[in-house]
Amino acid sequence: MDTNNELKALLQDIRDGRTDVDSGMQALRDLPYRDIGHTKIDLHRPLRNGFPEVIYGAGKTPEQIADIFTHMRGTGNILATRVSPEAAELVRSLFPDVTYNEQGRTLTHIGKEIVFGAGRVGIITAGTSDLAVAEEARTSCEMLGHQAGIISDVGVAGIHRLLDRMDTIRKYTVLVVIAGMEGALASVVGGLVRQPVIAVPTSVGYGANFAGLSALLGMLTSCASGVTVVNIDNGFGAACAACRIAGLVTA
Amino acid sequence: MDTNNELKALLQDIRDGRTDVDSGMQALRDLPYRDIGHTKIDLHRPLRNGFPEVIYGAGKTPEQIADIFTHMRGTGNILATRVSPEAAELVRSLFPDVTYNEQGRTLTHIGKEIVFGAGRVGIITAGTSDLAVAEEARTSCEMLGHQAGIISDVGVAGIHRLLDRMDTIRKYTVLVVIAGMEGALASVVGGLVRQPVIAVPTSVGYGANFAGLSALLGMLTSCASGVTVVNIDNGFGAACAACRIAGLVTA
Amino acid sequence: MDTNNELKALLQDIRDGRTDVDSGMQALRDLPYRDIGHTKIDLHRPLRNGFPEVIYGAGKTPEQIADIFTHMRGTGNILATRVSPEAAELVRSLFPDVTYNEQGRTLTHIGKEIVFGAGRVGIITAGTSDLAVAEEARTSCEMLGHQAGIISDVGVAGIHRLLDRMDTIRKYTVLVVIAGMEGALASVVGGLVRQPVIAVPTSVGYGANFAGLSALLGMLTSCASGVTVVNIDNGFGAACAACRIAGLVTA
Amino acid sequence: MDTNNELKALLQDIRDGRTDVDSGMQALRDLPYRDIGHTKIDLHRPLRNGFPEVIYGAGKTPEQIADIFTHMRGTGNILATRVSPEAAELVRSLFPDVTYNEQGRTLTHIGKEIVFGAGRVGIITAGTSDLAVAEEARTSCEMLGHQAGIISDVGVAGIHRLLDRMDTIRKYTVLVVIAGMEGALASVVGGLVRQPVIAVPTSVGYGANFAGLSALLGMLTSCASGVTVVNIDNGFGAACAACRIAGLVTA
Amino acid sequence: MDTNNELKALLQDIRDGRTDVDSGMQALRDLPYRDIGHTKIDLHRPLRNGFPEVIYGAGKTPEQIADIFTHMRGTGNILATRVSPEAAELVRSLFPDVTYNEQGRTLTHIGKEIVFGAGRVGIITAGTSDLAVAEEARTSCEMLGHQAGIISDVGVAGIHRLLDRMDTIRKYTVLVVIAGMEGALASVVGGLVRQPVIAVPTSVGYGANFAGLSALLGMLTSCASGVTVVNIDNGFGAACAACRIAGLVTA
Amino acid sequence: MDTNNELKALLQDIRDGRTDVDSGMQALRDLPYRDIGHTKIDLHRPLRNGFPEVIYGAGKTPEQIADIFTHMRGTGNILATRVSPEAAELVRSLFPDVTYNEQGRTLTHIGKEIVFGAGRVGIITAGTSDLAVAEEARTSCEMLGHQAGIISDVGVAGIHRLLDRMDTIRKYTVLVVIAGMEGALASVVGGLVRQPVIAVPTSVGYGANFAGLSALLGMLTSCASGVTVVNIDNGFGAACAACRIAGLVTA
Amino acid sequence: MDTNNELKALLQDIRDGRTDVDSGMQALRDLPYRDIGHTKIDLHRPLRNGFPEVIYGAGKTPEQIADIFTHMRGTGNILATRVSPEAAELVRSLFPDVTYNEQGRTLTHIGKEIVFGAGRVGIITAGTSDLAVAEEARTSCEMLGHQAGIISDVGVAGIHRLLDRMDTIRKYTVLVVIAGMEGALASVVGGLVRQPVIAVPTSVGYGANFAGLSALLGMLTSCASGVTVVNIDNGFGAACAACRIAGLVTA
Amino acid sequence: MDTNNELKALLQDIRDGRTDVDSGMQALRDLPYRDIGHTKIDLHRPLRNGFPEVIYGAGKTPEQIADIFTHMRGTGNILATRVSPEAAELVRSLFPDVTYNEQGRTLTHIGKEIVFGAGRVGIITAGTSDLAVAEEARTSCEMLGHQAGIISDVGVAGIHRLLDRMDTIRKYTVLVVIAGMEGALASVVGGLVRQPVIAVPTSVGYGANFAGLSALLGMLTSCASGVTVVNIDNGFGAACAACRIAGLVTA
Repeated sequence: MDTNNELKALLQDIRDGRTDVDSGMQALRDLPYRDIGHTKIDLHRPLRNGFPEVIYGAGKTPEQIADIFTHMRGTGNILATRVSPEAAELVRSLFPDVTYNEQGRTLTHIGKEIVFGAGRVGIITAGTSDLAVAEEARTSCEMLGHQAGIISDVGVAGIHRLLDRMDTIRKYTVLVVIAGMEGALASVVGGLVRQPVIAVPTSVGYGANFAGLSALLGMLTSCASGVTVVNIDNGFGAACAACRIAGLVTA
Repeated sequence: MDTNNELKALLQDIRDGRTDVDSGMQALRDLPYRDIGHTKIDLHRPLRNGFPEVIYGAGKTPEQIADIFTHMRGTGNILATRVSPEAAELVRSLFPDVTYNEQGRTLTHIGKEIVFGAGRVGIITAGTSDLAVAEEARTSCEMLGHQAGIISDVGVAGIHRLLDRMDTIRKYTVLVVIAGMEGALASVVGGLVRQPVIAVPTSVGYGANFAGLSALLGMLTSCASGVTVVNIDNGFGAACAACRIAGLVTA
Repeated sequence: MDTNNELKALLQDIRDGRTDVDSGMQALRDLPYRDIGHTKIDLHRPLRNGFPEVIYGAGKTPEQIADIFTHMRGTGNILATRVSPEAAELVRSLFPDVTYNEQGRTLTHIGKEIVFGAGRVGIITAGTSDLAVAEEARTSCEMLGHQAGIISDVGVAGIHRLLDRMDTIRKYTVLVVIAGMEGALASVVGGLVRQPVIAVPTSVGYGANFAGLSALLGMLTSCASGVTVVNIDNGFGAACAACRIAGLVTA
Repeated sequence: MDTNNELKALLQDIRDGRTDVDSGMQALRDLPYRDIGHTKIDLHRPLRNGFPEVIYGAGKTPEQIADIFTHMRGTGNILATRVSPEAAELVRSLFPDVTYNEQGRTLTHIGKEIVFGAGRVGIITAGTSDLAVAEEARTSCEMLGHQAGIISDVGVAGIHRLLDRMDTIRKYTVLVVIAGMEGALASVVGGLVRQPVIAVPTSVGYGANFAGLSALLGMLTSCASGVTVVNIDNGFGAACAACRIAGLVTA
Repeated sequence: MDTNNELKALLQDIRDGRTDVDSGMQALRDLPYRDIGHTKIDLHRPLRNGFPEVIYGAGKTPEQIADIFTHMRGTGNILATRVSPEAAELVRSLFPDVTYNEQGRTLTHIGKEIVFGAGRVGIITAGTSDLAVAEEARTSCEMLGHQAGIISDVGVAGIHRLLDRMDTIRKYTVLVVIAGMEGALASVVGGLVRQPVIAVPTSVGYGANFAGLSALLGMLTSCASGVTVVNIDNGFGAACAACRIAGLVTA
Repeated sequence: MDTNNELKALLQDIRDGRTDVDSGMQALRDLPYRDIGHTKIDLHRPLRNGFPEVIYGAGKTPEQIADIFTHMRGTGNILATRVSPEAAELVRSLFPDVTYNEQGRTLTHIGKEIVFGAGRVGIITAGTSDLAVAEEARTSCEMLGHQAGIISDVGVAGIHRLLDRMDTIRKYTVLVVIAGMEGALASVVGGLVRQPVIAVPTSVGYGANFAGLSALLGMLTSCASGVTVVNIDNGFGAACAACRIAGLVTA
Repeated sequence: MDTNNELKALLQDIRDGRTDVDSGMQALRDLPYRDIGHTKIDLHRPLRNGFPEVIYGAGKTPEQIADIFTHMRGTGNILATRVSPEAAELVRSLFPDVTYNEQGRTLTHIGKEIVFGAGRVGIITAGTSDLAVAEEARTSCEMLGHQAGIISDVGVAGIHRLLDRMDTIRKYTVLVVIAGMEGALASVVGGLVRQPVIAVPTSVGYGANFAGLSALLGMLTSCASGVTVVNIDNGFGAACAACRIAGLVTA
Repeated sequence: MDTNNELKALLQDIRDGRTDVDSGMQALRDLPYRDIGHTKIDLHRPLRNGFPEVIYGAGKTPEQIADIFTHMRGTGNILATRVSPEAAELVRSLFPDVTYNEQGRTLTHIGKEIVFGAGRVGIITAGTSDLAVAEEARTSCEMLGHQAGIISDVGVAGIHRLLDRMDTIRKYTVLVVIAGMEGALASVVGGLVRQPVIAVPTSVGYGANFAGLSALLGMLTSCASGVTVVNIDNGFGAACAACRIAGLVTA
C-alpha cells in the first residue's frame, strides 16, 4: 500500500473486475508480512528497501530467537545480530547449518547462494578492541550482498600506519571507519579520500569516553566534510548504510 | 605526499635527474596549498577528495571572508556557508557576481560552468522551519556538482503527505532527510526506500529538544536500518556526504 | 482532611454533638491509612483518586512485599509491579491464589470481582522487545478496572504494518503507545487518531539511546500535538493515566 | 488513504464505475491538504484527529505567518502560537478581526462560532511566572472547543493555598498542572484527584533548573501514579491532550 | 597549624624557651594525625570540626577496613559507612563488640558512652525504599552525638499522611528529608516548617530518575526557600550537617 | 489548616458554639493569604516558617513587581530579589523609600525596624566575581533578621589568604561559602570549621564550568562531611537556610 | 605560612629575640597580599608559583578592572585576559602605555623588561577560527617569560598541511594544540612528537559540538598517550601550564 | 615518512643511486611497525615519541594479551595496563619473569635495565581509594624511565596534612595530583607550587560524582592557573605526560 504504483495496479485490477473489493482489501492486508504472535516477520521488506528481515537479538530470549529462525527458514537467508552465546547454542542445536561468529556475535543462515554486487565495502578500525564491531559489520555486509574487507589497527596516534595503507583503502567503493576513544580516525580518513565514509563510534574507552559519547560527538563534529555517523557500536547499521551505497555501483 | 602514487612519480623524477632533491622538497611543500596568513587555502583538495575548499563563515569576520574570496577567485568555483547578511553585503560590494542565498545563508561564485553528475540528491524536510537547512544543502549539492530537489513539509504527524510523494522521492539517487523536533521522518523514510538516507537533525524545537539533541539522538537510534546522521543543522555536511555517494553513479 | 466536603461533614457532626472533639481528631487521623511499621498502607486512596494502593516492588525485599500482601489481603484487589521472580515465589508460597505474570513482572490478587468500565485501553508496541512494558500496562489496566488489548510489533520502519491495523486501533477509548529506540511510533499514531495518546518510551536500544533517553526526548518533542508522556518503561504509570481517562466514558 | 474505510469507499466507487482510475489517484492525492509552496496546509486534519491546522509561529517570519493566515481564512477558525508581537502586528494590520493574546502570545481568528463540548479543562499554576504558559493553554483549549479555567499561584511551598482550592479543582473534567522549578505541584495534585492530570514543566527557574529540565524530570518521575507530561513550556500541547480527553465526555 | 590561636600559643612557648625550635616543628607535624601506611588517621579532627574520623567503606577492601578498626580502637567511638556484609563479617569476627546495621550498612563501635546534645534530628522519608538512607543517617547522628527519630513513608502523593504528622515533625531541632523519584517532599516540608531542612535525594526510581538526578535537581530548585541539599543517597553527610546545626542548641 | 493545633482550637470553638460552621469554613479559607489576581500574597507565611513573602523578580514585569509592592506595603518589611534596574526604577518612582542594591539586585523596604537575632551569618567568597551573589545573600539575611558579614576573595589558589582569616570566620554562627569555577573553597572551609556550612555554587566561569555545573557537582561531592548546597547563584536561598539555622541560637 | 622553611626561619627569629611574638603574627599576616577592598592583590604569588597576579576580566566591570590596574602598577608587569573592548578603552584612557590585543582580548602592561627563559612554546591551531584562543595563549606566554610561536590552520582534514610543518613543530620545548570541532589534531600531534603536549578544546563549532564539549571529551580520551587538557577556550591556562614546563629547561 | 629529514635522506640515497625506487618504497613501508594479525606492534614508536608500545589491556582477551607479549619479548621492556588478574595469570604462566602489580593492575617485563632520567615525578593522592590509580601511574613512570614517589591521603578536608608535606612535594620535577569526589586537591596544590601539575580525576565517589565527572569538571575549571587534566582514572596517561615533561630536565 506504500507505493502508488502498486496501488494503481491493484485499482486497475479491481476496475477491470480481475479482483473484487474484498479480495483487494485482503491483498493489501496480507501482502506485506506474516504474524507469528510475538513478532511480525516482514517478508516483503526486500521489495521495499532491499534488506531481509534481520533479527536484533538483544532483549530477546533464546527461545524467541529460535522461534523466529523456525518461521523464517524457507524464506531465504537469515541474519541475527547481538546474539548471546547461549542463544546461539540453542539455535544451532536445532539448525546445525547455522553459523555463529563469536567475535561479531552474529548468527547466519545461508538458504540460497549470495551473489555479491559490484560495490565493495572497506572497514577500517582504529584499534584491536574495535574488532567486534568490525566483524558485525563485515558479516552483515556479506549477508546483504556485498564483499567487505577489514583494515585494522590504524589509529591516528601512529598516523604512518594509516598512510601506508591508503592505496588499499582507496580501492573500496565505500568506507566504514570504526573507532572508539576520541574517534579521530574518521576525520583523518575523511580528509584523505573521495569515497563515502560512514563512521561508527565504539564504546571502547573509559571515563570521559562515557560509553562512546566522546567518539560519537567527535565524529558528528568532524572537521572532514561529508562524514556520516551511525549509533555507537552499530556495526550492523553501518553495514546497511554501506550496502545501500554499494548497491548503486554496477560492474 | 599523501598518496604513494604521487610520491612514486616524484621519486622517479628525482631518480632520473628530471628533478633535483631541493626542488623535490619544494614540490612536496608547495603542491598542496597556498598560505595567505590567517588561512591556508587548500587548492589541491579537489585532487584528494573531490571538493573545492569551502569557507565556513561562522566565527570569521566579514573582512576575513572577503579576504579569502579575493585570494580564491581564479581557482574555480567558491562556496561559503553560514555567511551573515553583513558579510554577504561586504563581499558582494567587492564582487557583484557573487550570489547570496538569504534563506540558506550561502555565498557562491561560479567561476567555471558546473557539469552536473548523473546522481541526483533528494532533500526531504519535515516542516517549514527546516527550509533554511534544506537550502544550505541544496546550494551545496549544486556547487559540488549534483542537482538537488526539495520535497518540503512532509512530517510524520500527517503521514499521508509523505506517502503521497513517495514516487517522486524514489527517483533520487540518494536522500537527505531534514527534521527537527523528534526527527521521526528519518525512520519512516528509511523504512520505505532502498536508497542511501542521510539524516540531518535540526535545532527546530524547544524545551526537551535541547537545541536539536532530541532529533539527533532519535536519528542515531532510528529503528530503520541504514540511516546515517550528520551534525545538527549541518546541511552542508549532508550535501558533501550525498555528493560523495551521488558521484558513484554514472549515466 | 484533604477535601472541604469531608471536613465540612465532620465539622457538622462535631457541631451537632454527634462526634466529640477527640473522636473528631481520631477520625481525621485514622481514616486515611493503616501503618504497618515499614509501610503506610493507604486504604483510602480509592476514595481520593480511584486507585488501590499498589506495591512498587523494586527496591523492596521479598519479605517486605510478602508482608504488605499479608496486611492488604481482605481490603480488596492487590497489584504489585516490578516483582522479581524470587519475590513472586515467596508470595505465592504463602498465597497460592496470587498470580504472577512473568513477562510483565506483576503479581496480582483478585479479592473481589472486577467490573470493567466502559472505556477500553489500546496498547500499541513498536517491537517485540517492548512487550514486557506492554504486559505491565495491560495487567495494570485490568486491575484498575478497564479492559486492554495489545497491538504489537507495528514500528514505523515498516509503516504499512501500522496502517493496516488502524481500524482496530481507532476502536479503543484511549491509546498507550510503547516504543524504544527513537520512539517515532508515538508521533505517527498521534497524527493518525483523535483519541488521547499516552506515550511510553522504553529502554530498548543501546549507545545513543542512553537507556531510553532518545525515545523519551523524541516523544516529548513529538511533532504530533497532544501526545503525553510518562517515564521510561513505566507501563504501570501509563495504565493509571489511561484508566483515569477511560473512567470518563460511560456506556 | 490512511483509513481502510475511506479506501474501501473509494475502491467501491471505482469498482462501480462511478470513479475512473486516474480520478481515483487524483482523489487520493488532493483530498488531504493544500500546498501553498513553503507550507502544506492540512485542511483535512480535523477529519483525522479533530484539530484544525495550527500555526507554530516560532522560527517563521512574520511574512510566512501572514501568508498562511491569508490562505487559511475561509476554512474555519485559526490558532497561531508562539507569535512575536511583530508578527502579530503584521497579521492584524491585514486582518483587524484577528485577536492577539500578549501574555500567551497566541493569535486567533474565529471564523465560525465555537460550540463548546461538555468536558471542561482546569489549568493550575504554581506561580505567577507560569501564567504565560497557562494563557497559551487556555486560549488553545477554547479554540479546540473546550472551556478552560485557570487556578493560579497555588505552588506547594504554601500547600494550604492549594488545599483550599480543591473543591473548585475537582469540578473540571481534566487538569493541566503547570509548574517550573522542581514541578512538585504535579505530584501533589496527582495524589489528590481522580481526574486525568497533564503536567507541563516550565522553564521558570535558573541554575540547576537547566531551563526546565528539573521540573521535566521531576514530573516524569512523579510519585503520583497516572500523571502524564508534555514538553517544557508546551501549553498548546497540553491543551491538545486535554481536549482529546475532554472530548470523550458527553453532556 | 590551621588556627592562629594554636600557633600563637606555640610561638609563645618557643619564645619563652619552654619549647625549642625542633620540638616546635615536631609538635606541628605530629599533632594532627597518625599515618598507618595506606591511610592517615586524623585523630585531631574532633578538635577542628567536632567529628570523629569516619571510615568511608566503599572502595576499600574488607582487610583495609579491618586494619583501620585495629588502629583506631582506643581513640574513642568509630563509625564506618557503606560497609558490605562481607567486610562487616570480617571486622566482627575480630571485634565482636562492633555492631552492624544491615539496612543502613553502618558498622559502629562505642568505645566511650555518648552524651547526647540537646538538639534532636528528625528524619523524614517519602517511601519505604528510602529507609536504607534514613538508617545510615540515624546511626550517624547518634554516633555524632545527637538523638534522631524517623518519620517514614509520608510521600506527597498522599499528602494527608504528612500533614497528620506535622506536630511530631515540628518538635525536632533540624529536619532531614529523604526522598527519591521527584523529591517533592522536601519542598512541601520546607514550606510547612520554620526549622532548618536538609534534603537528601535518593537513587530510588528508574528511567528519567537517572539514578537520583531528578530528585537532586528537584531539591536544588525547590520552591521552598531555605532548603539545602546533600549528595544523592548521602545519609551520612546529611547527618553531619544536621549535627553541626543541632550542636548550636543548648538545653 | 496545616497544623492539628490550629485545627483543634477551631474545632473547639465550633463545638462550644463560639463559631458556626460556615464561619469556620470561612476562617479556614481566609486566614492564610490575600489574592490580588495575578499573585496570592502569603501574609501568614511568617506564622508558618518565619519568613516574609519574598518577591522573586525574575520573569515578572516591572508592573507586576510594582503591583505587589503596592499591596504589600503595610504588612511589614519587603524583599524583592533578581530585580532588574528597570523594575527598580519603576518601584522607586512610586515608593522613594525603597532601597535598590545594584550589585545584589535586591529591592528592600523597611516598614518596621528589624530586631536582629543573636545568630550571625558569615559569607565567604572565592573571588571578586562572586560578590553579586554575596550581596544578595547579605541583604537577604538582614531582611530575615540576622546580621551578616562578607569575607571576600579568599579562593583556594592562594590558600594562605583563607587561613589568615580563620579567626574571623570562626566567630560566625553559620557560614555561607560562595564560589564559582570548581567550588573547592567549600571543601576546604568545611574541613577547617565546626559550624554549619552552606555552599553556593556560582555561574562564574566558562567552558567546562557549564554555567555553574562544575561548582555545583563539586560542592555536592565535597570530601568535607556536612557541607550542604543550594542552587547555583542562589544567594537568597542560602540566606534563608542560614537564618533558619541562626534562629536556633539565643543570646 | 605555607612552607615549613619560611616558618622555621620565623620561629628561629622569634627564638633568638630578633622578632617578638606580635610582630611574628603580623609578619605572617602581612606578607602575602594587599587588600584593596573588592579584591585581594596577591603580590607574593610570584614567590610561590612563579606567576604574577593576573586579572580575569570576565564578570568584572570596566571600573573594577581599571581599579586593579591602578593599584598594581608599580609592582611589575600586568596581564589581564578576557577584557572587553569597553574595559580596554577605559584602562587605556587612564594608562596609555597599556597594550590591547583585540583578537586575543588581552590587556598588558610591561613595567619592567621581560627576560625570556630558554624554553619556547609552540602553539598549533586547527583552523582560522581558533586564532583568538591562540593569541590569548601567545600573549600570556610572553608575559610569563617564554617566547611563543603560532603554527596555524593545520587541521587533520588536510593532514599533509600538518606533516609538512613537523620540522618546525619539533623545535619547540612544549606544544599547545588548539582545536575545536572534534579536536582530533591533539591526538595526531601527540602521536608524532616526544614533547609535552597541552590540548586546548575550543568552542568553535555548533550542534553536537555543544559549545566545545565534543573537542573537550575527544582530547580527554585521546588515543595518543600523554596529552593533557585544559578548559575550553582556556588559552591563558594552557600558557601557564606550558610556561611551568618551559621553565624547567635551562640554556 | 613523517619527518622531512628522514625523507630527505632517503631521497638523497635514491638520487645517488644507493637505493633504487622500489627499495625506497619498501623502506618507507617496512620501517615503522610489525603486523601480527590482530594487532600492529609499533616497534618504532620510541623513535617518534620516546615511549615503548604499551598494551591497553581492557577489552582484550587474556589470549590476545599473551599473544602480544610473545611477539614483543626481545624488543625491550613491556608495560601492560588495565590487566585483569585472569590475564595476568595466563601471561605469568608463560613468562614467569613478568611482574603483576595487583593494586595498579599493571603487568611489566624488564628486558633491559632501565636507566632513570634526572627528572622525578611526585604523585599525590587525596584518599586511600585513589591508590589504585596512583600505583598505575607510578609503575608507568618507572617503565618510561623516571623515578616516582607517592604522597598519599592528603585530601583538602584536612588541609594541614597537605601543608605538612609541602617540603617533600616541592622536590619533585613534576607533580601528578590524583583525587576523586570534587577533586579540590588539584586546585590547592596548583596554587602552592611552581612545578607543572597534571591532575587525574578518579571515579571514587557516588551520586552527583557521576563516575568521576564532578572531579573532572572541577579540575578543568580549577581556579589555580596552569593545572592540566587527563581522563578519569587515567594513571597511565598522567605518567606519560609527566615523563614527557621530566625528560626535559638534565642532571
